Amino acid sequence: MINLIQKYLKIFLFTFIFCISFFVVSDDASPNLAITSKDINLIKNNINKVFPAKKELDSLIESNEKYISSRPVVPYPKDAGGGYTHEQHKTNYRLLYENALIYQLTKNVSNLLYVKDLLLEYARIYPSLDFHPKQKEQSPGKIFWQSLNEAMWLFYAIQAYDMVKNSLSVDDKNKIENNLLRPMAIFLSKGQPDTFNKIHNHGTWAAASVGMTGYVLNDKNFVDQALYGLDKSGNAGFLKQLDNLFSPDGYYEEGPYYQRFALLPFVIFAKAIDANQPELKIFDYRDSIILKSIYTSVQLSYNNLFFPINDAIKDKGINTIELVHAIAIAYDITSDNTLLEIAKYQNHILLTGYGFKVAQALNLKKERPFNYRTVNLRDGIEGKKGALAVIRNNEDNQTIVIKNTSHGLNHGHFDKLSWIFYDNNNEIVQDYGSARFLNVVQKNGGHYLKENNSFAKQTIAHNTLVVNEASQFNGDWKVSQNHAPEILFFQNTKDLKITSAKFEDAYEGVIQERTIASVHIESLDFPIVIDFFSINSNKKNKYDLPLYYNGHLISQTGNLSYHKVPKILGNSSGYEYIYEKGFINPQNSLEQITWLKDNRFYTVSIATEDNSEILFGQLGANDKNFNLRNENLFIHRVDNKSNLNYLSVLEPHGEYNPRYEFTKNPISSIKSLNGIVDGEITLIKLLFLDESEYHLVFTKIGDGETSHNYTTQLNNYEWKGHSKLFTIKK
Amino acid sequence: MINLIQKYLKIFLFTFIFCISFFVVSDDASPNLAITSKDINLIKNNINKVFPAKKELDSLIESNEKYISSRPVVPYPKDAGGGYTHEQHKTNYRLLYENALIYQLTKNVSNLLYVKDLLLEYARIYPSLDFHPKQKEQSPGKIFWQSLNEAMWLFYAIQAYDMVKNSLSVDDKNKIENNLLRPMAIFLSKGQPDTFNKIHNHGTWAAASVGMTGYVLNDKNFVDQALYGLDKSGNAGFLKQLDNLFSPDGYYEEGPYYQRFALLPFVIFAKAIDANQPELKIFDYRDSIILKSIYTSVQLSYNNLFFPINDAIKDKGINTIELVHAIAIAYDITSDNTLLEIAKYQNHILLTGYGFKVAQALNLKKERPFNYRTVNLRDGIEGKKGALAVIRNNEDNQTIVIKNTSHGLNHGHFDKLSWIFYDNNNEIVQDYGSARFLNVVQKNGGHYLKENNSFAKQTIAHNTLVVNEASQFNGDWKVSQNHAPEILFFQNTKDLKITSAKFEDAYEGVIQERTIASVHIESLDFPIVIDFFSINSNKKNKYDLPLYYNGHLISQTGNLSYHKVPKILGNSSGYEYIYEKGFINPQNSLEQITWLKDNRFYTVSIATEDNSEILFGQLGANDKNFNLRNENLFIHRVDNKSNLNYLSVLEPHGEYNPRYEFTKNPISSIKSLNGIVDGEITLIKLLFLDESEYHLVFTKIGDGETSHNYTTQLNNYEWKGHSKLFTIKK
Repeated sequence: MINLIQKYLKIFLFTFIFCISFFVVSDDASPNLAITSKDINLIKNNINKVFPAKKELDSLIESNEKYISSRPVVPYPKDAGGGYTHEQHKTNYRLLYENALIYQLTKNVSNLLYVKDLLLEYARIYPSLDFHPKQKEQSPGKIFWQSLNEAMWLFYAIQAYDMVKNSLSVDDKNKIENNLLRPMAIFLSKGQPDTFNKIHNHGTWAAASVGMTGYVLNDKNFVDQALYGLDKSGNAGFLKQLDNLFSPDGYYEEGPYYQRFALLPFVIFAKAIDANQPELKIFDYRDSIILKSIYTSVQLSYNNLFFPINDAIKDKGINTIELVHAIAIAYDITSDNTLLEIAKYQNHILLTGYGFKVAQALNLKKERPFNYRTVNLRDGIEGKKGALAVIRNNEDNQTIVIKNTSHGLNHGHFDKLSWIFYDNNNEIVQDYGSARFLNVVQKNGGHYLKENNSFAKQTIAHNTLVVNEASQFNGDWKVSQNHAPEILFFQNTKDLKITSAKFEDAYEGVIQERTIASVHIESLDFPIVIDFFSINSNKKNKYDLPLYYNGHLISQTGNLSYHKVPKILGNSSGYEYIYEKGFINPQNSLEQITWLKDNRFYTVSIATEDNSEILFGQLGANDKNFNLRNENLFIHRVDNKSNLNYLSVLEPHGEYNPRYEFTKNPISSIKSLNGIVDGEITLIKLLFLDESEYHLVFTKIGDGETSHNYTTQLNNYEWKGHSKLFTIKK
Repeated sequence: MINLIQKYLKIFLFTFIFCISFFVVSDDASPNLAITSKDINLIKNNINKVFPAKKELDSLIESNEKYISSRPVVPYPKDAGGGYTHEQHKTNYRLLYENALIYQLTKNVSNLLYVKDLLLEYARIYPSLDFHPKQKEQSPGKIFWQSLNEAMWLFYAIQAYDMVKNSLSVDDKNKIENNLLRPMAIFLSKGQPDTFNKIHNHGTWAAASVGMTGYVLNDKNFVDQALYGLDKSGNAGFLKQLDNLFSPDGYYEEGPYYQRFALLPFVIFAKAIDANQPELKIFDYRDSIILKSIYTSVQLSYNNLFFPINDAIKDKGINTIELVHAIAIAYDITSDNTLLEIAKYQNHILLTGYGFKVAQALNLKKERPFNYRTVNLRDGIEGKKGALAVIRNNEDNQTIVIKNTSHGLNHGHFDKLSWIFYDNNNEIVQDYGSARFLNVVQKNGGHYLKENNSFAKQTIAHNTLVVNEASQFNGDWKVSQNHAPEILFFQNTKDLKITSAKFEDAYEGVIQERTIASVHIESLDFPIVIDFFSINSNKKNKYDLPLYYNGHLISQTGNLSYHKVPKILGNSSGYEYIYEKGFINPQNSLEQITWLKDNRFYTVSIATEDNSEILFGQLGANDKNFNLRNENLFIHRVDNKSNLNYLSVLEPHGEYNPRYEFTKNPISSIKSLNGIVDGEITLIKLLFLDESEYHLVFTKIGDGETSHNYTTQLNNYEWKGHSKLFTIKK
């Protein structure tokens, strides 16, 4: 009897809550996530006036026609990433979202019915699903091999449902909500507490999906869990992720590849929060951290491609769909016309409110050049875990990236103090990126390849020092995660841009200080890069400084001994993947290596040491599955030394012009290089073939306002701040 | 006394001739070469109405200002190609031409004076010059290391002189004509009879320079020598070059790289002939061979780059300056608006009469798509020395080039029956081109590199059969020059484009027949290429069929044994440059190798033989100066066989999309491949994974109208012409 009463009470309560929620979420409040009913009206009323919105809609309709004329295809989960069922379920969430959007904009019933049928089909099979048969690592999904994909599925599906629910019967809504959306949200939250509470992009996807489901199903519990963590304490959840995943400069510790990926749930969920809980002022949160992070994402690119630091697919760029949304949302909030230059390049108009506003602005030709800046992006929650230095010479289309950041979690590489150099639209001194063929089933099912750990993450895969053929922290990322370089200084002046960092934890007893400067010398074609790498150790070591050059080797000073058959450089730490093709035993105090990329020459001039060797290498040894690109490098090796200063200059020069058949300045202009460390002062002397002479002086002492004075037998140097370039002879 | 009379007579005659020439070549007839006074008036009267002519002129003026504000720089000849004096003398002929043109269009005296001073400076030093200190091979110049450059110098200088001479004093003209132009023309004609009379592009440059000098100096002797050879018999000279350097289809036997280079003197000199001797109707000569050759040059390109057969720099394309002139001249004559598409891409408006007319037409947006065709370009003076087959699928942006031509003189490669495959804007099955860094002094002074002979020209450097590790004709080009493949048939229908050629001279006792077909299969993403290579020999041989794939190896069937340390493939004929990285011993009747280039997959499916091996190689062995690109290849090797049929299919498929993160069809659709030769009939059976089945049948018997009937146990095939594709099951 009591049971019966309880049962009726439950039914009554359920109906009551249902009615309340139904009344509260009235027709005109739907949709009300990142796309609102107001947005829909804006688009519908203006679509013919704003190019190319109507065309975009027509093309969206057309591309969906072939699908909606057939029955939905919802296969039982079977394949890993890249496989048939994986791709079909991905297709389905796109179909849900796109057809729901088309329905909103056209009221075409066939799109509605397709979305309804597709959701019902998922609602039919979902309750019976166990973990995916190819479950990945610790966090499997049900529809997909990993729960990350599942969260992405719900992310789109809930937005689709938000756009159709007012046109569905109560019965259909019940089935979809109770058999699919609610169980999936529960599975993604308390069903996998570790992932959901993780301060990590996987956690953000889960929070965004569950939180939006909460808004749509009017379930405050889901919303609060999403915002404040499973226990609603605020120690996890979206706000904590905003606190802890970005540095105060909007840098995401995993690096730009994961930053742009993580951005989508941040910006879409933030839009949804703004629509439902405007009082949270989410876009102002933590000094506008969401907007900062969007701007920083763009700053982390060259020639529209992201810097490939850490695990990164090198062909990812700022036209990625995540950044299409992010830029448009940022524009909607800021009306900053420089964002429109990015939107114009992206060439993808979204049929959302914010997307439509971008289209309107582009129609009015409001775009202005985006301000790519020289900037030291601090890493760490409080900005104290190193920094990523980005040095730009915009007129010369040059960028230097110096990775003085923290490790970057399990997608980080052992590459502290490494650098990348871009020039003439190419990555000239390059970073390997990750060893992965995304979604290519033949290549380890589209996962990261074995060589990602065994080579791409290792120190020798980067343009930074390797001590005794071992990676930094012996390749243990959890140890590396606790350490970051100390930024000694960063100075940005017109003809001299320079940064210096110190790192003393990567190798026991070895203190590394690297200073990299971009210097403008009047008589040269382009700015040059001065690299001064100072190493101090309490014992003798073998030091390897690799440089991955991109281009065709043109010349080198010194006698190159070419091995009849390549040697293999080593047995571990990534050395096993490198063929040694030949070497030079430097006989001169200056050795020069020149290569050609596209129509420009690049020379690295190296002040050499006694007992040093320059090895010429190529990737490919032990690469049994042809998983690596056969990139080229040279390694400046100095063995059996405790203290050492590596000094080199990278100089872009000349022109190779096959169209008009001429070649200009194929030879370096540098005659000699000299580095002197005297206490806390470092003096670098550059002598050019035209006998002009420049001295770079720098010190970590003081700050930008400190005055310094340094005298040698020949010269007296006076300057303010950390560094100055002196013209000795012009 | 008689001597004295003779002397006075000479002076009198000289003065008389001088006066006549002066009278005949009156002011309004100058300039009168490729640029005429009428052209100058056209440009001057319309320059502000035609975009971007005024801008071009302003920019031409501006780029010359820094030069004409200083004294001319005419160094004594010293350096080889790419060196300082070489480049300075090249700069000077450009300065002569450009400033003379600016003077014509602006009447600005400073440009005139600069041209005058520069010419006088050359006139001052030229008489004292002996052969260039770095003289090249058989035909040295004086200002330059080779007389080819010297002819090019005169080519521009005489055009410049033609534009200024009416503004110079008689004294200056005498100095310039008598100390520079006339002696240089004599040096380039009777001073080097072998080169001048050569039926070769070097001869054309000499003829054009000497002939134009003849028109300007009113020296009929020079003109007649240029047109008809030194002895004026017509056995040499420009007309003979038009007869013998092009096939009836406008193909130049050295290939497109030299064709475009050779074109400039042809078209400029032809324009000059037309202005001075219109009665020769030079553009109608030999069925309009000059125009044919211009069109053919464009046909010999893909994605705006020339096919890199024979000695070719791979980054040369249809925007090369020679073709800018040629296209504009062709447009001037034909008014064919499809040429304007090329001109628009070239984006270089010439301030000549023909260039200006192109600009006018582009202003009116008259350009129409150029008709890139499927065409069999016959080689040889009478079109009987083989052919270059160009098979295009324009809608799919695919092109196949099959090199069934003659050798191509000393720039030819040992590559008969080789092929190149282009798709998706890339060269997918690639030809190495030449081993040369044009004008890069560090790389053998900009000459062809040693590896051009020892590798790039060798058969193993190409996608064609190597017998017993030797090159065709044992690498002797003078022998090869006497032989060309026999074209068995060429058929161009909508879904089937196919050509077949036979070559029986390259290896003693070995008869090669290669048939390459492009086939459109409805269910596939893109057309596929069927390659059937039939070999018959009277003894057992080792057969190697290399394929240079461009992209990253994704997968291969069979167990790949990867060498711990690469082997070197051989000792000679180019084999010494190839590392063998690993191999497969095929266990199946079908082996598949898949690679990825940009966003598309490519699979070669190979019907394998017993005792065959597939070797995976990379260039770089013994490459002591890093002169070669490290291209990748695989070699299908069959040892100890006399007769053999290689059958394979190249299939572009799927999509790798990093922007939107999806991958489609990364796996080949082919299930099995079967080739049967039955007398004169070849039957190729293709079975696909979806169980659809197609049979390609071909025969060399008959012609395009011949009816054939062939019956097997399973099927009956009836067709007309050489080949047909039968749908067995869809």
